[in-house]
Formats: sequence, structure tokens, C-alpha cells
Amino acid sequence: MIGIVGDSAAGKTTITRGLVRALGEDNVAAVCTDDYHKYDRNQRAEMKITPLHPDCNYVDIMGQHLQDLRANRAILKPVYQHSDGTFGPPVYVEPRRFTIIEGLLAFHTQEMRDTFDIRIYLAPPEELRRKWKVSRDTTKRGYTTDKVLAELDRREHDSAAFIRPQKQYADLVIAFQPVEGRDQSQLDALITLHPGLAHPNLAEVINGDSDGLELRRDGECDVLFVPGELDRERGEEIEEHIWKSLHFAQHLRSGRLGEFTLGTELRRSEALALTQLLIFYHALTARASVALGGSGTREQDKIIAESNG
Amino acid sequence: MIGIVGDSAAGKTTITRGLVRALGEDNVAAVCTDDYHKYDRNQRAEMKITPLHPDCNYVDIMGQHLQDLRANRAILKPVYQHSDGTFGPPVYVEPRRFTIIEGLLAFHTQEMRDTFDIRIYLAPPEELRRKWKVSRDTTKRGYTTDKVLAELDRREHDSAAFIRPQKQYADLVIAFQPVEGRDQSQLDALITLHPGLAHPNLAEVINGDSDGLELRRDGECDVLFVPGELDRERGEEIEEHIWKSLHFAQHLRSGRLGEFTLGTELRRSEALALTQLLIFYHALTARASVALGGSGTREQDKIIAESNG
Repeated sequence: MIGIVGDSAAGKTTITRGLVRALGEDNVAAVCTDDYHKYDRNQRAEMKITPLHPDCNYVDIMGQHLQDLRANRAILKPVYQHSDGTFGPPVYVEPRRFTIIEGLLAFHTQEMRDTFDIRIYLAPPEELRRKWKVSRDTTKRGYTTDKVLAELDRREHDSAAFIRPQKQYADLVIAFQPVEGRDQSQLDALITLHPGLAHPNLAEVINGDSDGLELRRDGECDVLFVPGELDRERGEEIEEHIWKSLHFAQHLRSGRLGEFTLGTELRRSEALALTQLLIFYHALTARASVALGGSGTREQDKIIAESNG
Repeated sequence: MIGIVGDSAAGKTTITRGLVRALGEDNVAAVCTDDYHKYDRNQRAEMKITPLHPDCNYVDIMGQHLQDLRANRAILKPVYQHSDGTFGPPVYVEPRRFTIIEGLLAFHTQEMRDTFDIRIYLAPPEELRRKWKVSRDTTKRGYTTDKVLAELDRREHDSAAFIRPQKQYADLVIAFQPVEGRDQSQLDALITLHPGLAHPNLAEVINGDSDGLELRRDGECDVLFVPGELDRERGEEIEEHIWKSLHFAQHLRSGRLGEFTLGTELRRSEALALTQLLIFYHALTARASVALGGSGTREQDKIIAESNG
């Protein structure tokens, strides 16, 4: 069970879509926790509450449904319609081999955090996220640019209070970063690999070549830098190395990692492909370790609990 | 947790409403399992499936939600709109002191049956039920008489296969019966009290007087007959006797038991009042026994399991 958390327009859906394609549509139950809003768009406006606030969401039901899916039980998932901000009839979601939960508050409670094998937090620079949000909300959700910018300001308090603190619970923190003069298919990726999960050994293939790839230590974490302009051949070399440790899952190799849409155009990014493969790696090793009777103990949770007093 | 099962228009809502009034609206979470239909009215027509068929309902979700409520967890309940046969946004149902579940299939699985402290099956004579159904569906659900009658025929197979067999799991089987020349406020009530629950001792107050009340033994069951024309004073005497054993719950005495609407008129029936009080008695003693650490073992379930092989 994979959890993907990040602020609005941080790229959750892009990451999720790639994983669903890679794992196979029929193998994945993908659930978005935005569907668990308590109030529709009009009610929120009246109440002056943002969808980022836990009080604006059925956090208890979210937690139960995550546990249900984790325990292989189907759920009847509510449906929030972004197109007009109202709720539709619920849909039946059957448990599958893999579950991907993406949303604003999926790591908000311990109960929810405990259901995940891998926890991912998306942390693009605010400037980039704002750009993404304006672009998406004006083209797909019928807002004007001014409205989106005003909404971003209105949400800032709750972002800081409820969304960003969830970063501390992540196994992987992923930050795509724009580079002056390059377009969005060439964003750099900065990936922080927290201890608690056994990450693939990348030191064997990333060793200070002039390809721009970097792997460095930051406290207890490994930090991987993937330049947006990494060429395909070198990208595939790293991917090949990771696939070697996934020998039990060769049948899932699809080669469609790294795809995303820019406007209406289908594009590909090596940095995105590598990021998705890292998540993919953990999804598969988690399954393997569960299948082999692994305990899934989360050392990281203990460390955080201790440091938070 | 009270379960009330019976075929369409068997009187589930009438019984439930009286109980909700008696227990206090704020004390009761009332859930109708019709909301768990899988298909809307048009889909059912296309598929030629009736809402009585388990395949037409999310029986698994029903079972989970009953267990959630039983364990004091809130649920997000789907909403089936009888007015037009479609689904609306789900609603949040918080656990309360008492839970009343009414529906067509609430005793269909062992999982569901196990959640109830009291199981009630409503078994009016088919002729009376058909009359009730025609009356309700033409006045409240926009059907014509011919359509309702055709629908009743269409449902007969599934009624026999899935609804009526649930009667065997009931603690109380309630059959209101019409009497020639009397109107609906004077239906007789025939109540079969199955072993497995400790019913109130009625033999002390029902003793062959000429009031028409009868208490007789039928195999392992007690059968109580309450004539529709029972006068109010005698009714209240019996009720008083039952209330004596509910000394811990005197504050819940409201005197509004037995009310129902006939057309647009509010009416009262002694037989209905007594029936509701019997259910009420079990709701309260179940709570008391849980509070006192009772185990809630269901002897009846074992007996049925044995006899069914």
C-alpha cells in the first residue's frame, strides 16, 4: 500500500498515473482522499474553511477505509466532483494487489500512516507548485487565474499547519525543480531517501561521473539528485540496475515510466521515470516482504515519535 | 443494536419510527439497508434483477458498516433515493446509544446477524402487505397500481428465496393481521417470541381474561396474541408490567408508542404500542446487559446452525 501526499497540484496525480500504468491498471486500486471532504465547494465558501483543514474532511472514515483496503476488504468510496465541487454517488472499490492512496491528508493520523508500506511526500518548490496549480485549475477546473492565486493565499495557513508537517513521516521526499531556460520535461529531481526502508543500492551505479547524477549523505538520509537533462541511455542504465534486484517482477516491466502530459502533449522525463521506479521498487519489495512473512516494522515511526517527544 | 427485517412494505419503517420516537431521536442511529443497492432503478430494469436479490446489493459493505456501528465507529452511508430510484451523495452516520437497522437483507449473512442484540422479522399476511405496498408506492413513490402489482409478481421468486428465509433468525416474529370489518388502527398482532433472548414474563399479567389477549406455547416459542380492539386501559396495564422490569430506564417513558399514520391522519394502536414496547424492552435490556458485562451469546444461532445441518 503506497501513500502519496503533497499539497494541491504538487504532482500527486502525475506520479500516481505513472505507477498505475507501470503496475497494471487491473492490479491497482487507486483512491484519492480528496473524496472524503465533508463540505461541498459552496458550503466551504460559506464556512470559510479550506479543504486542507482536517475538520473539513471525514478523517475517521478515511482511516477506516484505508484499514479496510489494507485488510483486503472492499469500500464504498465517496466521490467529490472537482468539476463543480459537489458530491456524486459513491463508488465500490475492490481491494487489489496494490493500493495507491493519494491526497492532501493521507498521513494526518497515526492510524492512516500505519496502513502504508511506503510513504511519499511531494515537495516541489512553492513557486513551481503555484504555477502547476494555476495551470491545472484554470484549464481543468474552471477557475480564473486571479481566483486560483487568491485561493492559494487563503490556503497558506492550513498548508503550513496541516499539509507540510506530514513531510516528516515520508520514506521518500520528492522535489522536482525547475531550471532556468529548460521546459517542464527537464525538471531536476531531488529525492530524499529516509532510513526505515531498505532503498536500492544506488552507490554502485552512481559514482561521480560527469552525468550530473549525485548521491550524497545528509544526516541519516541519502539524497539523490537526478538532473532533468539526464540522457535516456544513462537513465536506463540506472533503471536496469534497480530492475536487477526486482528479478521476481520482470513481467511487470513496461517501459512506460516517466510519461506525463504537458498541455495535451505526451512527454517523457528520465527524472520522473527514475522517481517512479524507486517508488515501484518499494511497492514490489513491500509485497515481496509481506509474501515472505515480513513484519513491516516501521523503525522510522519510532524515531519520529521519540524526537517529537 | 436492533435489526428489523421484512419484505417491502411489511411495516419496517412504521416500527422503526415508533422506536426512534420512544428511544429519543438523539439516542438512535437509524440505517436502512436499501441504501446499499448496487444498481439504480434503470439499471435494475435493464438487468432484470430485483432489489431483493443479494447480488443487487453491496452485502459486504453492509456487513462492514454494521460492524463499524457496532464497534462505535461512524460510517459514510450511501443514499438510495426512492423518489427517483437513483443514488445521492453519501451521509455521515455517527454511532449512537442505540442503532436500528432496517432493511430487506439485514439478516442475510452470519456476519450481519452477529451484530444484532435483537432481531425482528415482520411477517404480515401477504394480502395485507400487498395492500400496504400498493398504497405506499402509489402515494409516495409515484407508481401506478398496475405497476406495483406487476412488480410484486416479479419479486415473488426473490422474496421466497432471499427475504422470507431470514425469518428463522428472528428473536421476535411479528405479524399484524387484519380483521374483517375493522380498520387498520385495529389490526391484531401475533408475536412469536423465540428462545435465546429472555423475554419479559407476561404470564403474570396475561391469564385468560376475557380481554382477548392470549399467551400460548408453540414448541420452544411463546406466542402472544394482542387483539386490535384491546382497550387502552388494559393495554397500559400490560405496558406498566413491562416497564416495571425496566426500572433503570423510567426516564425514557414517553407514552408515544403505538402511533402511526393512516393516510395523513395520526392514529394509535394498542397492539402496535405493545409490540414496540417489547422491542424497546430488548433494546434496553441488551444495553443493560452489555453495560453489566454480559456476553451476548446467541444460543439461538447455535440451535439454527445445528438444525440446518
